[in-house]
Amino acid sequence: MVNRTKEVLTKCDNSLYGHYPHFVSMKKILQELQEYVKEDEYGDDYGEGDYIANFEKQIADLLGKESAVFMPSGTMAQQIALRIWCEKKQNFKVVFHPTAHLEIAEHKGYSFLHNIQRVQFSVPELLSHRLLTFKDFQNINESFAVALLELPQRLIGGQLPSWTELSQISRWCKEKEVVLHLDGARIWECKHFYQRSYKEICNFFESVYVSFYKGLGGLTGAALAGDKTFIAEARIWQRRYGGNLRTQFPYVISAKIGLEKHLEKMDLYVSKTIEIVELLSEFEQIQIVPNPPHINMFQMFIKGEPEKIAKAHLQMAENYKTWLFYPPGKSLLPNYSQTEMMIGENALKVDLEIVHKMLNEIFAII
Amino acid sequence: MVNRTKEVLTKCDNSLYGHYPHFVSMKKILQELQEYVKEDEYGDDYGEGDYIANFEKQIADLLGKESAVFMPSGTMAQQIALRIWCEKKQNFKVVFHPTAHLEIAEHKGYSFLHNIQRVQFSVPELLSHRLLTFKDFQNINESFAVALLELPQRLIGGQLPSWTELSQISRWCKEKEVVLHLDGARIWECKHFYQRSYKEICNFFESVYVSFYKGLGGLTGAALAGDKTFIAEARIWQRRYGGNLRTQFPYVISAKIGLEKHLEKMDLYVSKTIEIVELLSEFEQIQIVPNPPHINMFQMFIKGEPEKIAKAHLQMAENYKTWLFYPPGKSLLPNYSQTEMMIGENALKVDLEIVHKMLNEIFAII
Repeated sequence: MVNRTKEVLTKCDNSLYGHYPHFVSMKKILQELQEYVKEDEYGDDYGEGDYIANFEKQIADLLGKESAVFMPSGTMAQQIALRIWCEKKQNFKVVFHPTAHLEIAEHKGYSFLHNIQRVQFSVPELLSHRLLTFKDFQNINESFAVALLELPQRLIGGQLPSWTELSQISRWCKEKEVVLHLDGARIWECKHFYQRSYKEICNFFESVYVSFYKGLGGLTGAALAGDKTFIAEARIWQRRYGGNLRTQFPYVISAKIGLEKHLEKMDLYVSKTIEIVELLSEFEQIQIVPNPPHINMFQMFIKGEPEKIAKAHLQMAENYKTWLFYPPGKSLLPNYSQTEMMIGENALKVDLEIVHKMLNEIFAII
Repeated sequence: MVNRTKEVLTKCDNSLYGHYPHFVSMKKILQELQEYVKEDEYGDDYGEGDYIANFEKQIADLLGKESAVFMPSGTMAQQIALRIWCEKKQNFKVVFHPTAHLEIAEHKGYSFLHNIQRVQFSVPELLSHRLLTFKDFQNINESFAVALLELPQRLIGGQLPSWTELSQISRWCKEKEVVLHLDGARIWECKHFYQRSYKEICNFFESVYVSFYKGLGGLTGAALAGDKTFIAEARIWQRRYGGNLRTQFPYVISAKIGLEKHLEKMDLYVSKTIEIVELLSEFEQIQIVPNPPHINMFQMFIKGEPEKIAKAHLQMAENYKTWLFYPPGKSLLPNYSQTEMMIGENALKVDLEIVHKMLNEIFAII
């Protein structure tokens, strides 16, 4: 199935999902990086050099922070942020959503590497399906050093709290002397929802992590931003992690390209997402979470068995040379399959009538 | 001085030091990577994919281990190795040379991230200037889980213990049920000294770290090799570290190129190093450690003030368009400056008579 999926993907000229053609050869990617840089530009030497420093400055300015550091991954950046704040507060307890990347995708590095402990929000903690609220914070009867908020909350379809809720949580943290850290893996996508600048959004947070792939389509890489002393200490931890690489220049270049290509278009991607969700909502077999979407992503629930849907989709994708979604998995609801959608560059040139037609044919088969 | 150094470096056509031209623009490096890969080759997806898997297999085979994993850095790879073995042995004490990378260049990540403690060899521990010996191990009166040996020991000029000494240490570790781990940052360079295969050298060790830059001239990247269960666990730790990047393909390509370009030539580099050291030894103002060199590196002590030597060297380098060494620092001896030399591709085409002439002129100035 994996090979068949790849085979069909490479044949598709259009896609409702993501950026670029789906599988891009290394040669093509390197060609793009190579064309982007000038003859007399040199890569960083263990994180030092004009090219990386200028980019870090650009990110810090964009987020309204004093300083920023480029790191290989968000996993590393966020654990480092937590550790620094926990040491400063002399308290190794933190809070974050139970579906946070730290909790589900990092083999609990925060615990294994730092002995940091996550405080549970409620008893029992049934939050997986919804956003954290101001009330959740008020109900915590335990001291902790850091609160990590993920904006948007990926696993529930990229949902965002309202500006009011965010302000309340931020004010509460200030009062309690809790550090508020932003997991901004998809923060670039949030401007449309809040109608605020990145600077204004990040102003709620003492430290911010942002990613350069995902929405920006880069190769890999992240930045951690905050005040100067925080970032200076983060650089020490980056070395402890083995994240101060000999050079990171291919990732820095691709991050720069990603920002240039996609940042200005984020609002466009979100508008397109809303349009697409309107179309999808016409099908009684489809449920979208959240509806309307908050950013350019959502969870799509499709009535039927995952395998059958995937098979029917591959057949249609091949026929129409248009890709709609990645093979869905089982959802909580027994009759529904589930897949995550991300709308980007590709969707802008997809004929939505074809999408409508394809879905009709898929539902006719399954 | 840094700018002046860079300026002169870029003007030099020849160099006694290292591989390639010294400062290579990002464009040139990317061009080389791009030319190396085929149209239909795809990069790894979070460490998965044929390209990276085949390379990991190649490394495992070369080192005579069951399995290997590509990682962004040796710092990460070695801390992970120590942690796994310490947990297995339920003992968080380890031994390594006081000038090991872990002790001096990683802000003690092994301690800050893992609470691993380094056991001191002797009282007082005055080992910085020499290799560890079998006797040093015999004199430890404390239990510990892992011994990390660096072959060659970089900071003392890339020295290597004899095969007999190595065998004794290895046997002692087996008897004491201590895991022996190899810091093989420059292991590629050791074949000439031992006249043994990499497989035979690595056979002493339960786990091995190797680097793809340094002697191989790659961009960055490392591999950790060992048995299957060890590597499977290392992959979990790599994720905990945030080292399981979205993709590492630029580093994998450059590692492959490095192996192809340099591995076969390592013996040639070492022979050349011996020849160069013979020439350098003709100058009473120069002392080489070790003499004769064990691999293609050595520490060079030059009589005189670091600044004066650096200045005179820059002048000569500019005149002859030939680079000899990086600006030296102070050495332990008050009259001597010290710089580390690494002999590679560049030295093969340098006219040693010019080197001789340049040194004469440098010593005439200072």
